[in-house]
Amino acid sequence: MINVLILGGDGYLGWPTAMYFSSRGYEVTVVDNYFRRNACTELDTAMLYAIPTLIERAKLWYELTGFEIKVVIADLSESESMRRLFDGRLKYQWAINEKYSGLPEILIHYAEQPSAPYSLMDYKHADVTLINNLRVTNNLLWAVKDYSPDTHVIKLGTMGEYGTPNIDIEEGWLDIEHKGRKDTFLYPRQASSLYHTTKIMDTDLMWFGVRMWDLKVTDLMQGPVYGIETDESQIDHRLRTIFNYDEVFGTIVNRFIVQGCVGYPLTVYGGGGQTRGYLNIKDALQCVHKSAESPAKSGELRIFNQIMETFSVNELADTIQRVGLNRGFDVKVSHIENPRKELEEHYYNPVYQGLIDIGVEPHYLTDDVISDMFSIVEQYQDNIRTDVIFRGVKW
Amino acid sequence: MINVLILGGDGYLGWPTAMYFSSRGYEVTVVDNYFRRNACTELDTAMLYAIPTLIERAKLWYELTGFEIKVVIADLSESESMRRLFDGRLKYQWAINEKYSGLPEILIHYAEQPSAPYSLMDYKHADVTLINNLRVTNNLLWAVKDYSPDTHVIKLGTMGEYGTPNIDIEEGWLDIEHKGRKDTFLYPRQASSLYHTTKIMDTDLMWFGVRMWDLKVTDLMQGPVYGIETDESQIDHRLRTIFNYDEVFGTIVNRFIVQGCVGYPLTVYGGGGQTRGYLNIKDALQCVHKSAESPAKSGELRIFNQIMETFSVNELADTIQRVGLNRGFDVKVSHIENPRKELEEHYYNPVYQGLIDIGVEPHYLTDDVISDMFSIVEQYQDNIRTDVIFRGVKW
Repeated sequence: MINVLILGGDGYLGWPTAMYFSSRGYEVTVVDNYFRRNACTELDTAMLYAIPTLIERAKLWYELTGFEIKVVIADLSESESMRRLFDGRLKYQWAINEKYSGLPEILIHYAEQPSAPYSLMDYKHADVTLINNLRVTNNLLWAVKDYSPDTHVIKLGTMGEYGTPNIDIEEGWLDIEHKGRKDTFLYPRQASSLYHTTKIMDTDLMWFGVRMWDLKVTDLMQGPVYGIETDESQIDHRLRTIFNYDEVFGTIVNRFIVQGCVGYPLTVYGGGGQTRGYLNIKDALQCVHKSAESPAKSGELRIFNQIMETFSVNELADTIQRVGLNRGFDVKVSHIENPRKELEEHYYNPVYQGLIDIGVEPHYLTDDVISDMFSIVEQYQDNIRTDVIFRGVKW
Repeated sequence: MINVLILGGDGYLGWPTAMYFSSRGYEVTVVDNYFRRNACTELDTAMLYAIPTLIERAKLWYELTGFEIKVVIADLSESESMRRLFDGRLKYQWAINEKYSGLPEILIHYAEQPSAPYSLMDYKHADVTLINNLRVTNNLLWAVKDYSPDTHVIKLGTMGEYGTPNIDIEEGWLDIEHKGRKDTFLYPRQASSLYHTTKIMDTDLMWFGVRMWDLKVTDLMQGPVYGIETDESQIDHRLRTIFNYDEVFGTIVNRFIVQGCVGYPLTVYGGGGQTRGYLNIKDALQCVHKSAESPAKSGELRIFNQIMETFSVNELADTIQRVGLNRGFDVKVSHIENPRKELEEHYYNPVYQGLIDIGVEPHYLTDDVISDMFSIVEQYQDNIRTDVIFRGVKW
């Protein structure tokens, strides 16, 4: 069996990824320190529904499918916790077979603080974001170098690393001609939040490791993900992923659908012309899996732009409003003063072909997809706390 | 009086900078946690001569010149230590006038782990470098934003951020035309050590602060500095700066002169075609001072390439050998296997005009300058430990 190690296995993408690989015959180990859940508690950002612990989920998954997902509860910003995953000292918090799975062929790195507003609440949350994200990535870099340089590392970057440049966004690299000479560089990056800036730094760290120690790295420049259900969570609703709908941890489509469901006007920041690339959570899993199936080579930092289509905020709001109204929800749209410093009208033309070329088959944000999300959210309508949706983190 | 705050005021550049500004009528405060000294002790990297504590130096400076340099001993990677410099809670460890100097007009940020080999000794030293450098810079960013956005921040970058690209190195920025459209970006950067990578990250952090909060930042992309004596240290030898001659903390010219002085063959790594830009410590001080005299504007990240001339390692070795032999030293040159992964032959054509344009008058690495360095090093010849010069940190 191919051994997959998922760092941040309790998160919005982490747990669905674990089930996705597990159901396809991989030997999966998940590691998490419950950072995201604890942050939700600290900040009083509600979840749409309660989720079982990672161990409960793994047990349930085993009962329902016969597949084992081994669980490690550990803070990977501590270097020894990271190294223990590789050097044989590891003890699982839960496993059917307690024997060490061995060095991972594939390592998927999600173990980061993933929210722009969180990173800019104040200097303390900035510090948590910067240090957690950089420390985990650096610990990973050294553990892979020291113990397992053949492991294919798949890490999440973000399209936000590129910002909104006035030229086309290529997939990771840019050929530059200057004063009659040529070279190829990482595509120039300037992010519009501190969180997104830590992802630039992650890329820099891994690129250093690739050049110096011939590591194998795939860096997925992902856009905002939407969606709740995946094929695996359809087996039992208790397998559904963590779902936030507030400004800090709720991504825009997810948040807008919850807002629409309870008559809370969709909060469009400023003009609403901000354009980004989006993808369905099912495609996020597909992208990671297809990347795993055709790994990067030794000494290669392979970068894909992980989006399936682009929308402006206004387009998202209008589409979700239209579908919601058709479903009988009282969906309003409200333009509020932009709490962020960002361009509200800008050029945006990213390339996103690499993942299609390795076999990803896109799902799009159709009316049916939006309608299905309304249906699931509606089941939890009584849980929705309108007081925590908008917080107004400014930068 | 103009108030200058120097973070990392005990280091190779920090203390000479403090004296330089103090003797020119600025009100100077230095902050340090003795990281560098402690690291020298930990790693057993000798100093050419013992140096007094920061408080001893400040007292001596006051006795000899009548100028006060206030001293704070603090670890600025702790956010409260940084914020205390701005919010009035500050207590000086030594000062003549114990009243708070007030918010700094000028802040000079040297408070970083500055060695490439240190950063790559192992995962622990990598972590110390990454976390110290990023945390101090991030704490600085937030303290300036929250308390003193008009402060002109002068920080040290490094020419190493650019690496050795196959196109000309501009001063910080590059205009790019791509598929018929244009934009201007930070010059693409890829460093050849983890330390140098942290400096790329520093630049990213400050650039974020400049764009979001209109901070005023000058980023000095400095090459390796050489030299011992400055005009201020000539007053009394006890005012001389910390001087290392080992592979970890000794910069190449300083190290080669010490090696030449004791007949330890100059250690040229590999082919010796590695070319970099260099400057005299006197010019490093001039550059910072001239930058302070003509500050960056609000919302400006002003970048200068802080070098005065370029040399290959072979050119440095040959020149130092020739001058040393003329002085009667037994200077040999030895090509050893390169412990680093770097290009030994490469294109290198950096622009370095901005600092000249604001009034810096370069000193060059003349035979007289080298000869004077031999003279000072010779005074301490009995202190030199040949066993600590070469350590062989590999990457």
